Amino acid sequence: MSRDIIKPSILPGFMELIPSDQILFNKMLDTIRKNYEKFGFLPIDTPVIERAEILLAKGGGETEKQIYRFEKGATDLALRFDLTVPLARYVAQHFSELTFPFRRYHIGKVYRGEKAQRGRFREFYQCDIDIVGNGTLDIINDAEIPSIIYSTFKELGFNSFTIKINNRKVLKGFFQWLGIFDSTDILRTIDKLDKIGLDKVKKELEDQGLNIETIEKIIEFIQIKGTNDEKLQYLENLKIENEIFIKGLEELKDVNHYVKAFGVPESNFTIDLTIARGLDYYTGTIYETFLNDHPDIGSICSGGRYDNLAEYYTKQKLPGVGISIGLTRLFYQLRESNLIQFTDDSLTKIIVIPMEGCLDKAIEIANVLRENNINTQIYLEKGKIGKKFGYADKLNIPYALVIGEEEIKVNKYNLRDMKTGEQRLLSKEELISVLK
Amino acid sequence: MSRDIIKPSILPGFMELIPSDQILFNKMLDTIRKNYEKFGFLPIDTPVIERAEILLAKGGGETEKQIYRFEKGATDLALRFDLTVPLARYVAQHFSELTFPFRRYHIGKVYRGEKAQRGRFREFYQCDIDIVGNGTLDIINDAEIPSIIYSTFKELGFNSFTIKINNRKVLKGFFQWLGIFDSTDILRTIDKLDKIGLDKVKKELEDQGLNIETIEKIIEFIQIKGTNDEKLQYLENLKIENEIFIKGLEELKDVNHYVKAFGVPESNFTIDLTIARGLDYYTGTIYETFLNDHPDIGSICSGGRYDNLAEYYTKQKLPGVGISIGLTRLFYQLRESNLIQFTDDSLTKIIVIPMEGCLDKAIEIANVLRENNINTQIYLEKGKIGKKFGYADKLNIPYALVIGEEEIKVNKYNLRDMKTGEQRLLSKEELISVLK
Repeated sequence: MSRDIIKPSILPGFMELIPSDQILFNKMLDTIRKNYEKFGFLPIDTPVIERAEILLAKGGGETEKQIYRFEKGATDLALRFDLTVPLARYVAQHFSELTFPFRRYHIGKVYRGEKAQRGRFREFYQCDIDIVGNGTLDIINDAEIPSIIYSTFKELGFNSFTIKINNRKVLKGFFQWLGIFDSTDILRTIDKLDKIGLDKVKKELEDQGLNIETIEKIIEFIQIKGTNDEKLQYLENLKIENEIFIKGLEELKDVNHYVKAFGVPESNFTIDLTIARGLDYYTGTIYETFLNDHPDIGSICSGGRYDNLAEYYTKQKLPGVGISIGLTRLFYQLRESNLIQFTDDSLTKIIVIPMEGCLDKAIEIANVLRENNINTQIYLEKGKIGKKFGYADKLNIPYALVIGEEEIKVNKYNLRDMKTGEQRLLSKEELISVLK
Repeated sequence: MSRDIIKPSILPGFMELIPSDQILFNKMLDTIRKNYEKFGFLPIDTPVIERAEILLAKGGGETEKQIYRFEKGATDLALRFDLTVPLARYVAQHFSELTFPFRRYHIGKVYRGEKAQRGRFREFYQCDIDIVGNGTLDIINDAEIPSIIYSTFKELGFNSFTIKINNRKVLKGFFQWLGIFDSTDILRTIDKLDKIGLDKVKKELEDQGLNIETIEKIIEFIQIKGTNDEKLQYLENLKIENEIFIKGLEELKDVNHYVKAFGVPESNFTIDLTIARGLDYYTGTIYETFLNDHPDIGSICSGGRYDNLAEYYTKQKLPGVGISIGLTRLFYQLRESNLIQFTDDSLTKIIVIPMEGCLDKAIEIANVLRENNINTQIYLEKGKIGKKFGYADKLNIPYALVIGEEEIKVNKYNLRDMKTGEQRLLSKEELISVLK
């Protein structure tokens, strides 16, 4: 057959892993899922394809440019670009079947046709949780969220990270007090402080037409130092007579108090008035999370409080609070920075290698191991023993069991530790208890 | 704000579940994954979007009509319609990084723009395993596959199911012996025996131009009765002098012998010469799996042996054997037939309900439970106690713990079994040990 070969490759901006990396990726995903479940969140799964009209209900901006949109038959379709819009549609659609506050987690792929560049992905996993109230949602929920971030990243193996907390109302009220009523551009500029530095922030604010005095006040405000309690005291001392500010400060104080109660160490969270989150969607508490030793990676978990989740799909008022972990990008960055442990990357615990004529016994033993939930592969191909050990080695399988006539005769089997080369002669029962 | 509300709905042919169903769906998915891992399969995950040229390399037929295909920029894209084509591309692309035999599992969504009808889905989960050899792959692998099917469906809670096994070479050789060299149409007809019955099969074969004598031989052949050993003996006794037949019979005998060795009870597998699998792709062993009491559901797990996985992407010869479970359709059918157990559908083990002024203690206890990996929700909203119990009830959360001043004073807590209403006063330590 002389067929033309098509060069096998994937599109730029898509991540595909070899199995040993995929195992590590899946472990991270499982850890996130387990932590979300530990805090009482329930799973949902929504279609990747939805009507474009639904996904673009809010419309505008980058979203519309980046979205994968196409027709099938006469239907205008698109691929979801986040998990928040599908959540809004889901809650509106299934409103009467759900129990509120509705705590859901959703782990799935989303699609953005961004310009391809290093570390940017067009298909990536988001791992989201949201708590959605019917009409109201207590502020204590905002304080529980950081404890979920803390628990998750601790279990992912991180120690040195900081959850930064702010409140949009505090910012908004402060700006109103300064006489600024549309603070969108200012917030966007402040948000870039870490990236572009103080001088450029000042310059941008000047360009937005603010006078020097106002700019100095803003800069002083967002740069307040001290412990969280000191920062709150400072805000108190400003005696800002603005309702939104007062409400926001009250919320921030509640969150600060209860974050501690929820067991997040002071060293892992901080009130930071510079974080603003670009999205105009947030209306209260906002979160960003940074690795202390790798601020360059950017926020690894962000989110916040919003007043009304699903206004495009229902008249029910649905306030909520949530966070998202962009796992694909996180995994990529961790791997680039050599921050992933590449040990223990075999799911298979043992490989059973039958010598010639000993296949039936090898199968019998594998059956018993599998019945005991020990992940077991039998090497079923013919070939030299060296090649078979080489196979186990390449796959990092920790144990090998060679089944030969001698072993069958004495009914004891040589368990070989593939790392140390150490061998132990064990009965079937001993084998199981060692491997379990 | 007087905004137009967009009616929240998903597209026809897509499945979306409420959380209590999603939990059951995920449990099935986890069980399948666990079983695949138990047999030494490694995970991969491939992009949902690939170049249309890659996905349609084989081309033709239903695939091309059903595929979701669209352009983004100047690139001709499509959504994967199965996990086999991506596997072929993956193995060809990563050939030098993989270790053969390559055992991979892949659980993910695939897309087919089929005509919408009951029980047909345009987005559905496939759960696939394949064992891919480099150049050769021992027939024993074909015998291990049914034991994976058996182990998986047993753990999914099924007892009465039959794995039907056949071999394409046996069919092909037999037809050649009858003087028929293009058996595609005949195989397709035979495959429908269960659906359309014997008379219609005869009629279709007549329409294909076969004479009565040949048809009778075919019918007798595919309907042989008896135990598996008797069937094999019958095939032996035919003394068919055709190489392909002889090779196929040998393979079928090996598979039959080793399927037993792998621990699949005789009652759960049978040689069935009527199963042919529509796909011309298979070249040896083929599998289909039926629920004995619900043959109407059709095959719940199918697959087979192929000679060359990736001929469109590489010159390497890559024989393999694999199976697929269409989980979305299976879940749908099981639910329609009331075959899913709707008990124990809460992931959350306990809800902690603080009385007024007792929130800090409630958080403290929830922290401890979560540290012990007990899935715990705190009811954080204000409201009457009855409403809070009602919430736990609706979510089927099995335990509730009310924290009031009395409890804090004695440092013991009332654990309420939500099903029986029974209450027990327990210390923190007792609480943990009861819930674990």
